[in-house]
Amino acid sequence: MEFEESGIGEECGVFGCVAAGEWPTQLEVAQVLTLGLVALQHRGQESAGIVTSDGGNPPTYMSHKGMGLVNSAFPPDALLKLRHGNLGICHTRYSTTGISELLNCQPFVVDTLHGRIAVAHNGELVNSRALRKKVMRHGVGLSTCSDSELITQLLAQTPPMEELDSPDWVARIKNLMTETPTSYSLLIMFKDVIYAVRDPYGNRPLCIGQLVPISKLHSSGAGEEDTEGWVVSSESCSFQSIGAKYYREVLPGEIVQISKHGIKSLNVVPRPEGDPPAFCIFEYVYFARPDSIFEGQMVYTVRQRCGRQLAIEAPTDVDLVSTVPESATPAALGYAQQSGLPYTEVLCKNRYVGRTFIQPNTRLRQLGVAKKFGVLTDNFAGKRVVLVDDSIVRGNTISPIIKLLREAGAKEVHIRVASPPIKFPCYMGINIPTKEELIANKPQFKDIAGYIGADSVEYLTVEGLVTAVQEGVAAMQDHMGSKKSRVGHCTACLTGKYPVELEW
Amino acid sequence: MEFEESGIGEECGVFGCVAAGEWPTQLEVAQVLTLGLVALQHRGQESAGIVTSDGGNPPTYMSHKGMGLVNSAFPPDALLKLRHGNLGICHTRYSTTGISELLNCQPFVVDTLHGRIAVAHNGELVNSRALRKKVMRHGVGLSTCSDSELITQLLAQTPPMEELDSPDWVARIKNLMTETPTSYSLLIMFKDVIYAVRDPYGNRPLCIGQLVPISKLHSSGAGEEDTEGWVVSSESCSFQSIGAKYYREVLPGEIVQISKHGIKSLNVVPRPEGDPPAFCIFEYVYFARPDSIFEGQMVYTVRQRCGRQLAIEAPTDVDLVSTVPESATPAALGYAQQSGLPYTEVLCKNRYVGRTFIQPNTRLRQLGVAKKFGVLTDNFAGKRVVLVDDSIVRGNTISPIIKLLREAGAKEVHIRVASPPIKFPCYMGINIPTKEELIANKPQFKDIAGYIGADSVEYLTVEGLVTAVQEGVAAMQDHMGSKKSRVGHCTACLTGKYPVELEW
Amino acid sequence: MEFEESGIGEECGVFGCVAAGEWPTQLEVAQVLTLGLVALQHRGQESAGIVTSDGGNPPTYMSHKGMGLVNSAFPPDALLKLRHGNLGICHTRYSTTGISELLNCQPFVVDTLHGRIAVAHNGELVNSRALRKKVMRHGVGLSTCSDSELITQLLAQTPPMEELDSPDWVARIKNLMTETPTSYSLLIMFKDVIYAVRDPYGNRPLCIGQLVPISKLHSSGAGEEDTEGWVVSSESCSFQSIGAKYYREVLPGEIVQISKHGIKSLNVVPRPEGDPPAFCIFEYVYFARPDSIFEGQMVYTVRQRCGRQLAIEAPTDVDLVSTVPESATPAALGYAQQSGLPYTEVLCKNRYVGRTFIQPNTRLRQLGVAKKFGVLTDNFAGKRVVLVDDSIVRGNTISPIIKLLREAGAKEVHIRVASPPIKFPCYMGINIPTKEELIANKPQFKDIAGYIGADSVEYLTVEGLVTAVQEGVAAMQDHMGSKKSRVGHCTACLTGKYPVELEW
Amino acid sequence: MEFEESGIGEECGVFGCVAAGEWPTQLEVAQVLTLGLVALQHRGQESAGIVTSDGGNPPTYMSHKGMGLVNSAFPPDALLKLRHGNLGICHTRYSTTGISELLNCQPFVVDTLHGRIAVAHNGELVNSRALRKKVMRHGVGLSTCSDSELITQLLAQTPPMEELDSPDWVARIKNLMTETPTSYSLLIMFKDVIYAVRDPYGNRPLCIGQLVPISKLHSSGAGEEDTEGWVVSSESCSFQSIGAKYYREVLPGEIVQISKHGIKSLNVVPRPEGDPPAFCIFEYVYFARPDSIFEGQMVYTVRQRCGRQLAIEAPTDVDLVSTVPESATPAALGYAQQSGLPYTEVLCKNRYVGRTFIQPNTRLRQLGVAKKFGVLTDNFAGKRVVLVDDSIVRGNTISPIIKLLREAGAKEVHIRVASPPIKFPCYMGINIPTKEELIANKPQFKDIAGYIGADSVEYLTVEGLVTAVQEGVAAMQDHMGSKKSRVGHCTACLTGKYPVELEW
Repeated sequence: MEFEESGIGEECGVFGCVAAGEWPTQLEVAQVLTLGLVALQHRGQESAGIVTSDGGNPPTYMSHKGMGLVNSAFPPDALLKLRHGNLGICHTRYSTTGISELLNCQPFVVDTLHGRIAVAHNGELVNSRALRKKVMRHGVGLSTCSDSELITQLLAQTPPMEELDSPDWVARIKNLMTETPTSYSLLIMFKDVIYAVRDPYGNRPLCIGQLVPISKLHSSGAGEEDTEGWVVSSESCSFQSIGAKYYREVLPGEIVQISKHGIKSLNVVPRPEGDPPAFCIFEYVYFARPDSIFEGQMVYTVRQRCGRQLAIEAPTDVDLVSTVPESATPAALGYAQQSGLPYTEVLCKNRYVGRTFIQPNTRLRQLGVAKKFGVLTDNFAGKRVVLVDDSIVRGNTISPIIKLLREAGAKEVHIRVASPPIKFPCYMGINIPTKEELIANKPQFKDIAGYIGADSVEYLTVEGLVTAVQEGVAAMQDHMGSKKSRVGHCTACLTGKYPVELEW
Repeated sequence: MEFEESGIGEECGVFGCVAAGEWPTQLEVAQVLTLGLVALQHRGQESAGIVTSDGGNPPTYMSHKGMGLVNSAFPPDALLKLRHGNLGICHTRYSTTGISELLNCQPFVVDTLHGRIAVAHNGELVNSRALRKKVMRHGVGLSTCSDSELITQLLAQTPPMEELDSPDWVARIKNLMTETPTSYSLLIMFKDVIYAVRDPYGNRPLCIGQLVPISKLHSSGAGEEDTEGWVVSSESCSFQSIGAKYYREVLPGEIVQISKHGIKSLNVVPRPEGDPPAFCIFEYVYFARPDSIFEGQMVYTVRQRCGRQLAIEAPTDVDLVSTVPESATPAALGYAQQSGLPYTEVLCKNRYVGRTFIQPNTRLRQLGVAKKFGVLTDNFAGKRVVLVDDSIVRGNTISPIIKLLREAGAKEVHIRVASPPIKFPCYMGINIPTKEELIANKPQFKDIAGYIGADSVEYLTVEGLVTAVQEGVAAMQDHMGSKKSRVGHCTACLTGKYPVELEW
Repeated sequence: MEFEESGIGEECGVFGCVAAGEWPTQLEVAQVLTLGLVALQHRGQESAGIVTSDGGNPPTYMSHKGMGLVNSAFPPDALLKLRHGNLGICHTRYSTTGISELLNCQPFVVDTLHGRIAVAHNGELVNSRALRKKVMRHGVGLSTCSDSELITQLLAQTPPMEELDSPDWVARIKNLMTETPTSYSLLIMFKDVIYAVRDPYGNRPLCIGQLVPISKLHSSGAGEEDTEGWVVSSESCSFQSIGAKYYREVLPGEIVQISKHGIKSLNVVPRPEGDPPAFCIFEYVYFARPDSIFEGQMVYTVRQRCGRQLAIEAPTDVDLVSTVPESATPAALGYAQQSGLPYTEVLCKNRYVGRTFIQPNTRLRQLGVAKKFGVLTDNFAGKRVVLVDDSIVRGNTISPIIKLLREAGAKEVHIRVASPPIKFPCYMGINIPTKEELIANKPQFKDIAGYIGADSVEYLTVEGLVTAVQEGVAAMQDHMGSKKSRVGHCTACLTGKYPVELEW
Repeated sequence: MEFEESGIGEECGVFGCVAAGEWPTQLEVAQVLTLGLVALQHRGQESAGIVTSDGGNPPTYMSHKGMGLVNSAFPPDALLKLRHGNLGICHTRYSTTGISELLNCQPFVVDTLHGRIAVAHNGELVNSRALRKKVMRHGVGLSTCSDSELITQLLAQTPPMEELDSPDWVARIKNLMTETPTSYSLLIMFKDVIYAVRDPYGNRPLCIGQLVPISKLHSSGAGEEDTEGWVVSSESCSFQSIGAKYYREVLPGEIVQISKHGIKSLNVVPRPEGDPPAFCIFEYVYFARPDSIFEGQMVYTVRQRCGRQLAIEAPTDVDLVSTVPESATPAALGYAQQSGLPYTEVLCKNRYVGRTFIQPNTRLRQLGVAKKFGVLTDNFAGKRVVLVDDSIVRGNTISPIIKLLREAGAKEVHIRVASPPIKFPCYMGINIPTKEELIANKPQFKDIAGYIGADSVEYLTVEGLVTAVQEGVAAMQDHMGSKKSRVGHCTACLTGKYPVELEW
């Protein structure tokens, strides 16, 4: 799937770090945060922000936010001003809302009666409208449209029973969690502590890593005493690039306190009786980086399994299997392995194509995606091709690719999609086009192959996807011998079954 | 006085505009706002912001903020996005506080239960600490250090007796005015209305102008029906550059409503019994542009009068009178007229000197101000000079100028300062150095002439300054035949007598 | 091979376009040039330049050059000023030499007695020192170190027999070609004509494409009358993205004239008797985009063939074959096909890693390439891996990758390199590290496996590489039934046998 | 005169510096050069360039050029790369010609047979067309339109009698001077020497300063042994800001060699018999900074004398004398002194007005210069004003100023211009509008007062100007007791009498 034109928005990434031991610690927290953000860049390229704290009493907070990719948003002087942090949280963001863009950047920092807190949020509060109204009715003005500001204001309000002089942040966080069921993975920094919070449905990912000396990174013998600090991240793929060992996931509903003294689970807020967890299944299908680990399994492996399942559900009689580079490659290799057909590259990507300032004229519009992909003609001319993609949203990217291949000599082009059709909007943080724009809801979907110009089109079934995903979860849990927690995934965009009832 | 090195911060400027008549009006409000800001640029060069509203129901607000001078902070695309405004407010800012600079830029915009409001503020709330605590105790988080955000949150709170469904903004503004006595000149935009508010002490300036067709700008016959819109500004100097006629000042304590239907005075909140008004006297001495009008008199005239008064109080036996360009020139000309001595230029300014990136070495530091001023040697070599300056803050700018003149051949250099020594901090919006840094509080002040290398130094007396300022106010009032309102000016930085008691 | 750290410089790319027919033509030449440059961006990312001509008499030339990638070097106003061109040439550049960077950017434009010419050059003149001296002895000052300026000055000199009033550019170009044997692919624009020139050894690539209506792009029936213009490019991969059909290569020693009237071969300057052509073999191995076509064969196919050959020459007993993404993938797939071993991905690339502003500390340096690659642990843990790379230059990129794989659980890691060891410098346009820096010239090369931490390391032989390359050339020529021209490639960096004797 | 709208282009400035003594010297040459350029910024704001040399054998040259003001064109890294210079030359430039702007920036650097030379040029070669043709006929390609490149190529050519292995630069410079009579002030850097050259007519200024310890700057006892270096500059105003003593002018036709060993006059190339010198009289009238010294007299003094002369030639019966700030102030003060009328300010300048991005609509166009000037109404309402300006070029700036003053209540507005009408183009370096655009050549000039809306307009006569200028030259020469050299000034733009015959 080609991200830019298909219109499924990527979501956000959050990352936090606390240096262990007493100050001055050896670890340069601002560096770790920056590298962590770069590793989560695939989750959002619109803006980035870092807030660090020296952990003192009172603490000094340092902050920088910028538009664009992490590398350009954090010039040398920005890193310099963040340098004295002993802990910090950061955020990379996809969507742009509100009247002033930089204003909406996270982390959000506010002064409360008890001091300054900083909040980074991945997700979308399903009842944000009602919550905004509630907060404003309390006489609060909201300066952005972001859920993060709303969360900070909810946290700033004193719960009824709290003593004024010692804020009970855990009580406030629990209070927040009762106000809104999903979806959020939150990092809340206060003085020398980061609270890592995942909503009771576990809709968005969040996991913990342990910073150890690089020399002990891969030895099994790194003990507590070797800990140089702790990190918490939307995805574990960030751990390798900063020298951290994967520790564990934050559980659905869990509040974990991270400080220089270590990790402490403070509470697990339960879901309503009977509700299964609802981890976003599209993290597996598309969003996450393939080397990240969710629920004990590598994302790449799940994608490959989807490809195998797809080959079982929708075989083809062709000469070769290929991929729309780069995200669909694991599924294509899985399809090839299962089907026994040779895996062959038919397209190469021009990695330098980006936003040019040329005004497209008719000629250019006709060329379409041609400038993004080079066609490896000799690999498929005169042959029948099955092209595996990870998802089809609007259908306007795959269509010109098929045309390219045909014009270059492909005898047949069959499309196999390693996920089911997207039919419903997401209200939990994923930017999906309106129902009307989704190809699966258009009249043409009845003859989708004809519409996009393919010889045949088949999708993975919802059951097939769920099986491919959950097979690994089960396997892992058995292997680990731990108590089996319930397994469940949010498939709302495919099935219309939302994990919680939506209020309007 | 050389601003950059002396360290008296300039303050902020606010400006607002409402187009008259029904939409679409002919006036381009975003243009008027931009030009208004440029004309107020001397009041703050650090950042600028504009918020416009289309005045609809519900209104659409458009906003842009940027660092630096107005011209660079408002690139073409910024102006484009503001274009559809029928009214708007804007702000140019001097001081930099808080952790993220752009965040603190004004105008401040918040969503309240009753809609979005925008606030621009010139001044400094004397009791801001207590107010912040009060607001936070109510459970509100504050995301900046700025008084403007504090003001928006105070306005967002529902007063006890207000009906929920129809916000009584005037009641809320009056409520705000009872919470804090000074100092503020405020512009509050809500939907299709701007409320222009001046604190009861009138500490900061604010005046109203009428936009008329350029052809009728200087004719006396421009009537109500010619009105193309209304503007409100910190200083009247902005009116000329946008084609507006001076209308009147906003009175101390007054709330004026400006809409497309015209100007309406809603209320005048009184000062405590017995308190005189307290308009900042340094607006006359240094901050304001010489062509602005306060209390019916032109600032240039007051400065010239200060120079005359100084010549009476502190005459010198020299060959010529000169100025430290450019701000002290009216006073120097006044001194020359009164004393009968010839006015002669001794320094010319290099207008291109600014921040260079060269690292100063010893040699450069020794050169000091030499690179800012050219010495017009032939005009004074072998002569006795009296140099008039408008104020001396730290003394480290005037000292090298004296050295320059002596080295170029001046026989004597006498300094006459057209304002009294600054001895006390300002808590009402002017960024004055700490008490310790002020030359008037240093032991060396006893021999200030010796310290800065002058043959003699004399300051204008406080009484002399007040006389020079108030003479014109009285004259104007008599001339206008209107009821004499009380006259009074804040001289706190000179006398330590603050208009209100300071809370800590 | 990881480009950035390995230090083989990429070279330059040249591109030209002439719109067919009479002015105003429909084709927007500046657009075509920009897209052409983007497609050649892999050949140089340091700067880019475009010069267009309106083709008039006298012609108006328009020019823009900028640092960095094409997209950022050509902002909207740059494209605007180039817009009226009916023909143009452009250049994207790798290396940075000389005292002012932008000065050295190509195309180089000079005014001569007969008018303005513009020159774009890919390659490096082997005898540039002697030529510079010769030109300067003629009394010419040279303002850059670039060969392009040297070429323009040589072209500006009137050949002995030329009549002054009608410049014979072809004679001048031939004169230039006798002064220097290699290496150059040149585009020379004069008024309404582009001369495309390839050195007699054909060391650098150059090919011609025909612009046709998009609708006729893939039909075989596009005739002369459909021609919308002509393009000439370092690589054919650029043709697809602009809607051009591959026409043919410029032959070694050929001078082709391109104008709105079409293509015309003016001359073929011969090599010295007995010298074979010497097309750079590293274009196949590493530089060119895989979808480009040289000598009738697709680069991807050659790389795959190298992988197959490597599997024959250096088999391994392992569990899986993998690649260092992305450039080595065709070779790895070839190796897998030949060996029958499964092709498996073990690394994923973080496409957002680039230049950050963080100062590396010890910790970061120890992490090395970890931040560039994600490890797909589950795909290879406990397994024996053969990793195929396209070339090893210094050895300091592959070494940490091997370490990463081992630490993540690989049982064995064998390295197979799909090209022979680089041992000699290139003097014909490729930026290769000094002899001393090349791993193949270090004492450690005797135990290269031990040095980089691999279980075994094997390289493709020179014979193997030449076979893999020339097999396709022969095949193609037979297939086309045309006269067999001599086949030959420059392998100087591998063998030390340079195509011409080097002068010093 | 308002520069921006009137259209008289300012010209260029050149500056050079050599540190005395042996390397490493204490003086930071790059700093001195940067400050020197800033002080010459009024002579050109379009671009700036610096080239430094370490003076070694062979020398290393360092160079940086940038668009815009010096401060922005020389960011920290630019200064860093220039740092190791022991000598250097620099240039600030007004006009923009040629196809690529940065390409045309000076100093121009070329490699010649005998090494690298750098050239900075102020002026315009009257016979540049013929010279370009001559150079190109020699087979040289010219890559810019600048005279500087032409000069470098002329210097690169070996004179007939020169021995090849030891270049005789002085012979080459003399050769150049015979090829072109005027106008040029040149700095030519070669290895460790700067040659300062002024054309035989002395059309452009050039003077020498001596760098001494700051402590000895104004003492008369600074001897040879105190010299820290030498500077050469278009104007002496730059000396004060770098701590240099004025030494002397470079004479018309003189070649001065400046090295670490000191100053040496090498030759004075004579003018044709009978030709007087022709120093540009507009340097006195408008271009130069008032504190600069030419021919022994301060520019300010000449301007004041012009004002006095104007008061004699064209008196007025009014209430007050005023100025168009800032350049006309000396003349206005001179007029006031001579006439006995009070000097009064009527306009204040908004120093922040510059290029905004707002699109002017009708309303804005009607406002005209109003946004640039504040009107000091109370100073002149009801009074008769004579406004002194230094020159009137097109007449479209003064006209709206008169309107402003009238509308604000001036009873009469008379214009007195402290220079004669400009009627002819300049071919020697000053960018004057075409003959047709000059107000003095328009039919309306007959009733210029009516055309610009003044009550009366009078200009200084050519004789009056020449007297005012030459009075001081004579006085100075007598005072100095030196041999009287001939005095003469170029008044071509006023009289049409050019110092040399113009070739076309």
